Amino acid sequence: MRMTDIIEKKRDRLPLNKNEIKFFVSGVTDGSIPDYQISALLMAILLNGMNREETLMLTNEMAKSGDMLDLSALPHTADKHSTGGVGDKTTLIAAPAAAAMGCTVAKMSGRGLGFTGGTVDKLESITGYNTAVTTEVFMRTARREGICLVGQSGNFAPADKRLYAIRDVTATVNSIPLIASSIMSKKLAAGAETIVLDVKFGSGAFMKTAADAVRLAEEMVSIGRGVGRKTAAVITDMDSPLGRAVGNALEVKEAVSVLKGRGPDDLKELSVLLAAHMYKLSFGASEKESLEKANRVISDGSAFTKLKNAAAAMGGDAGLLTGEREFPAAGGSKEIYAAESGYITSLDSETVGKASGMTGAGRETLKDEIDYSAGILLDKKYGDRVEKGERLATLYGSPERLEDAAAALSSAYSYGSEKPPEKPLVYKIIS
Amino acid sequence: MRMTDIIEKKRDRLPLNKNEIKFFVSGVTDGSIPDYQISALLMAILLNGMNREETLMLTNEMAKSGDMLDLSALPHTADKHSTGGVGDKTTLIAAPAAAAMGCTVAKMSGRGLGFTGGTVDKLESITGYNTAVTTEVFMRTARREGICLVGQSGNFAPADKRLYAIRDVTATVNSIPLIASSIMSKKLAAGAETIVLDVKFGSGAFMKTAADAVRLAEEMVSIGRGVGRKTAAVITDMDSPLGRAVGNALEVKEAVSVLKGRGPDDLKELSVLLAAHMYKLSFGASEKESLEKANRVISDGSAFTKLKNAAAAMGGDAGLLTGEREFPAAGGSKEIYAAESGYITSLDSETVGKASGMTGAGRETLKDEIDYSAGILLDKKYGDRVEKGERLATLYGSPERLEDAAAALSSAYSYGSEKPPEKPLVYKIIS
Repeated sequence: MRMTDIIEKKRDRLPLNKNEIKFFVSGVTDGSIPDYQISALLMAILLNGMNREETLMLTNEMAKSGDMLDLSALPHTADKHSTGGVGDKTTLIAAPAAAAMGCTVAKMSGRGLGFTGGTVDKLESITGYNTAVTTEVFMRTARREGICLVGQSGNFAPADKRLYAIRDVTATVNSIPLIASSIMSKKLAAGAETIVLDVKFGSGAFMKTAADAVRLAEEMVSIGRGVGRKTAAVITDMDSPLGRAVGNALEVKEAVSVLKGRGPDDLKELSVLLAAHMYKLSFGASEKESLEKANRVISDGSAFTKLKNAAAAMGGDAGLLTGEREFPAAGGSKEIYAAESGYITSLDSETVGKASGMTGAGRETLKDEIDYSAGILLDKKYGDRVEKGERLATLYGSPERLEDAAAALSSAYSYGSEKPPEKPLVYKIIS
Repeated sequence: MRMTDIIEKKRDRLPLNKNEIKFFVSGVTDGSIPDYQISALLMAILLNGMNREETLMLTNEMAKSGDMLDLSALPHTADKHSTGGVGDKTTLIAAPAAAAMGCTVAKMSGRGLGFTGGTVDKLESITGYNTAVTTEVFMRTARREGICLVGQSGNFAPADKRLYAIRDVTATVNSIPLIASSIMSKKLAAGAETIVLDVKFGSGAFMKTAADAVRLAEEMVSIGRGVGRKTAAVITDMDSPLGRAVGNALEVKEAVSVLKGRGPDDLKELSVLLAAHMYKLSFGASEKESLEKANRVISDGSAFTKLKNAAAAMGGDAGLLTGEREFPAAGGSKEIYAAESGYITSLDSETVGKASGMTGAGRETLKDEIDYSAGILLDKKYGDRVEKGERLATLYGSPERLEDAAAALSSAYSYGSEKPPEKPLVYKIIS
């Protein structure tokens, strides 16, 4: 088989067969196919598309290109995945909630690149939390606690790693089949039998429109089901940040407040929805029962207990979660104020994310150090009424960083004299 | 400027502007743009196309990426170019004919890769012919003789060299704007004010259909005129080989026979047509006058004298052309015979070309040595009546090569009981 023939086929709009996709992925993995042939095929895929069957085969081969976690010894394994958004700490709530409902959430997460840290970074803001454990410890903890949240050990979907690096520099990121197969290959390798996806759209998200998010979600659900995983997706609005906290320790504290029955409504709504769908698919329960149960494990404190135990099992200081001890304080803080009176007609997620990164809460390269205490607490969000001079938000971090970050954050707000229309957080559920 | 933005633009079907094309070609030439970004853009161009203006700008930038011959000191410079075919030795006839009519044909040709040698290889089959001369000798000879046929010295269109190497291994060869800009960039760098193109279609040609050949020809004529060169194109059938000789010395001998007023009609017709158009554009003459004059310089021997002088000027043994001496004989020969009685309904050019390569007349890599005396003489061609056992062709070359070559050549012939329709050699002229 020759790679040029495969490129030619896709160039001429013909579907690739299983052997061709196998050949491609194995050549990507072992390095025998050079970058320039890979990028030519990626561009042909982006422009000419892939049908569902091709995308499924591609995902499967990429998943099999490296280690695959075998979670089959654990009961009701359920995973969630978000396509990424600003202030998205739903894993810290939905995972312990699902565990409290009887699912096993044995989840290895990646480190974040960009605005704020990923789940692993948020967990590491809990003093002592060790996210780098062996697979044995991971499996044992998951069995005992019903939940284990750590970083990736092992080599998941290396073919995707190489493809993504090439896509990033050849303008071939923006393809539904390529995005879907990239995400799902890692989810398949991560081993859970149930997968609930949160596909976001809007300013702070990768998909800019609801229609694109729906297409991506449908593609991913189709892949998950195609390989026998119970899969669902929620499509949610990311025009505004989720919750009020952006930044690692700040987000952990906000997640805890939701688990204690307080916390912002939008964050609670979405976290409950995700946990409910993890349970619903895992146990074949009804939607109504699942939602009731998800709300109950939060109100009765059992979801919070799961998070506390999960942290303690990994060496994390659970006293930070219960409030016995305080998270390390930030080096400084700075408030920003409303430039005019009126309604907040827009609070641009992407700009908030950038401002948060500027406080020290994110990283640009994997070598950068994160300031766990840095970030933003938003007082005012989309639709809120403000008076000129009223506080909009507080930024935390090293004092020398906060000037620029504050200016950036201020520019995320737009004002108007009329109250803007309400936007539902959840646009659609594919279940 | 970033290469990813340029790829993105073409991916999204937007035309590239002059600065973007300049940036791309200069990055291709100096190596600052990596192969994988080049191939992604090439695939996007292949699939989304380029408009006439983009193609013109690309061609111009590629032409300027290396040396450009300045022929402006010579009168009525005229060049011809063929997109390549089996048995195509028209340069050896049309060039001296155009020179005999008053054009200056100062032509640097490439070496051939594939079935048979290129013009340079054919010339080198004339004992003593030195195709590697300095630009000074080249210019002086062209001025004195009105004709100088040599190999490329200098570095023409290096951007095209790199692009072609990448296209070749990424299934991005087959794009009209890329083919047109590749050919024309080298023609522009070669300096002649008049350019006559022979665009072939059919089995032995790069373009498989007449319609594609017309599109390519129109694109190239548009480029040539766009930069102020007098440009025309003829679109010709390459389903069957041109003339009866395939192979280097064999083709020189056939060209001489046409220049002496004998030789196959198809070869003469096309060569006269090309020479006439070189003259017509150069001198602004009418088509009728140009054709009459082209025929006259052949019948009165002045075109032959030009070829003889051109060879002698480069140290070639002109006695081989006049018949005073014989070309070195091939190591052996082998005849093939008609497998059945009937009409030749097809003589597949591509297969004839491959068989010729097998005799030793071509090369696969630039390091391979060519056997100048090797090749094929065809007795029977498309449309001819044959009786079973009648001779179809004779192959020449080292005896150990001829068995396989003969089998290949036999398979190029198809038979039928009815005389097949005549096919005109010249499909269209764009003038």
